[in-house]
Amino acid sequence: MKRRHFLSVGAAAGLGSCASAKSTTAALSTAAIAPQTMPDGMTILFQGDSITDGGRNRGRYYANDSGGMGGGYVNMLVGQLLKEHAGKGMKIYNRGISGHKVFQLRDRWDEDCLHLEPDVLSLMIGVNDFWHTLTHAYEGTVDVYKNDLIALLEQTKTANPNIKMIIGEPFAVKGGRAVSAFFDGTFDEYRYASKAVADQFGAAFIPYHSIFEEAAKVGGAKHWCPDGVHPSLAGGALMADAWMAAFNGLY
Amino acid sequence: MKRRHFLSVGAAAGLGSCASAKSTTAALSTAAIAPQTMPDGMTILFQGDSITDGGRNRGRYYANDSGGMGGGYVNMLVGQLLKEHAGKGMKIYNRGISGHKVFQLRDRWDEDCLHLEPDVLSLMIGVNDFWHTLTHAYEGTVDVYKNDLIALLEQTKTANPNIKMIIGEPFAVKGGRAVSAFFDGTFDEYRYASKAVADQFGAAFIPYHSIFEEAAKVGGAKHWCPDGVHPSLAGGALMADAWMAAFNGLY
Repeated sequence: MKRRHFLSVGAAAGLGSCASAKSTTAALSTAAIAPQTMPDGMTILFQGDSITDGGRNRGRYYANDSGGMGGGYVNMLVGQLLKEHAGKGMKIYNRGISGHKVFQLRDRWDEDCLHLEPDVLSLMIGVNDFWHTLTHAYEGTVDVYKNDLIALLEQTKTANPNIKMIIGEPFAVKGGRAVSAFFDGTFDEYRYASKAVADQFGAAFIPYHSIFEEAAKVGGAKHWCPDGVHPSLAGGALMADAWMAAFNGLY
Repeated sequence: MKRRHFLSVGAAAGLGSCASAKSTTAALSTAAIAPQTMPDGMTILFQGDSITDGGRNRGRYYANDSGGMGGGYVNMLVGQLLKEHAGKGMKIYNRGISGHKVFQLRDRWDEDCLHLEPDVLSLMIGVNDFWHTLTHAYEGTVDVYKNDLIALLEQTKTANPNIKMIIGEPFAVKGGRAVSAFFDGTFDEYRYASKAVADQFGAAFIPYHSIFEEAAKVGGAKHWCPDGVHPSLAGGALMADAWMAAFNGLY
């Protein structure tokens, strides 16, 4: 399967190899964003792949729909957000779709991002950009991933220069059933790329990979993420906590 | 529709009218249970109606199944439980079924409770026992509800005298679309009955009705429970927090 080449902005931004982006991901990186007072009526959009999708009912696409958030970290944290910010008119959408890679977000970015006019974009994408090179003969490289991601965020920032972004690191949990081939260093380059792009755009960055690595010391991969890619309920709660910390750093 | 008369234990326990049970429900009632060290390998079972069901995939019935907890308060809190008690071998089941009244739990209690051998039973049931008298020509009364509930818990305690129980109060949120007929005092009797039964069995009691009443002062019924019966995501998170507080009082 060939990816569709849709972007030139990414090539122009041209960070090339991400070998220099191996900065530590041990802590949440929100320093680049000055906290502000949270506005009323804000819109928060979750975008990504199956981890964000969480098996959601895609027919229930209205904001804050209790049937439309799936069963993963988004469901767990959206309730908390709406509970803690009752009366603020917060609108929250989940538009993660299982199996997606970054270039597939582009195909639906108008409808599933720009038209929703998010004030906060939460984006976690990348595990399939690597995984499908092993399993689906996908030919994208880490540079393709990174440049497409840059172009997508350029487009998003152009539409709303004041948007706040939270980038979740693609992760794999060692010991999971499906990820034995993830630890030769290649997948790490995708993680470093997501960090570099987050830094480039002043986005909050959630280092899920090291968060899961640390958690798995108790209970093992099976407890947190049985196949190494898709979190368990415990893993979802772990992500929800980390996301809330990142979000609370924005305002 | 007639209910099936299955119980004599309840009649024997015979608390009759619950008019005397109008004790305050403003705070969690866990005083009757002495906290203990949490055992390893414990089993927690959630039972109830649609609020507990949360649209779960009933084919995914294994313990801790990330696809089988639905999208309601159970999904939100099970992740927290498994995160906070990693390495303890905790097994959690959701067996709520939409539309059920207490007598329908009895029909499936062997398979959906006793065979699972729960150490903790979390039970919230009752809104349909009242609601279906309005909408489905159901003929059960509050005494039927109460006596059946007593019999069910007697049976459960007999099977495991050491079981801990958490009883959630049936609730209705004033201003919700479907509950205008809930506030003539009749529904309150079901609430008081659930509290009386919780006290009788030394169960922790979660006063969801007053919890929602308090929460709805900000954001209104629509934010927390649009139809007055089924919680929004915010309402689910509210319930999850209250449940965690009750559970943490047990150990």
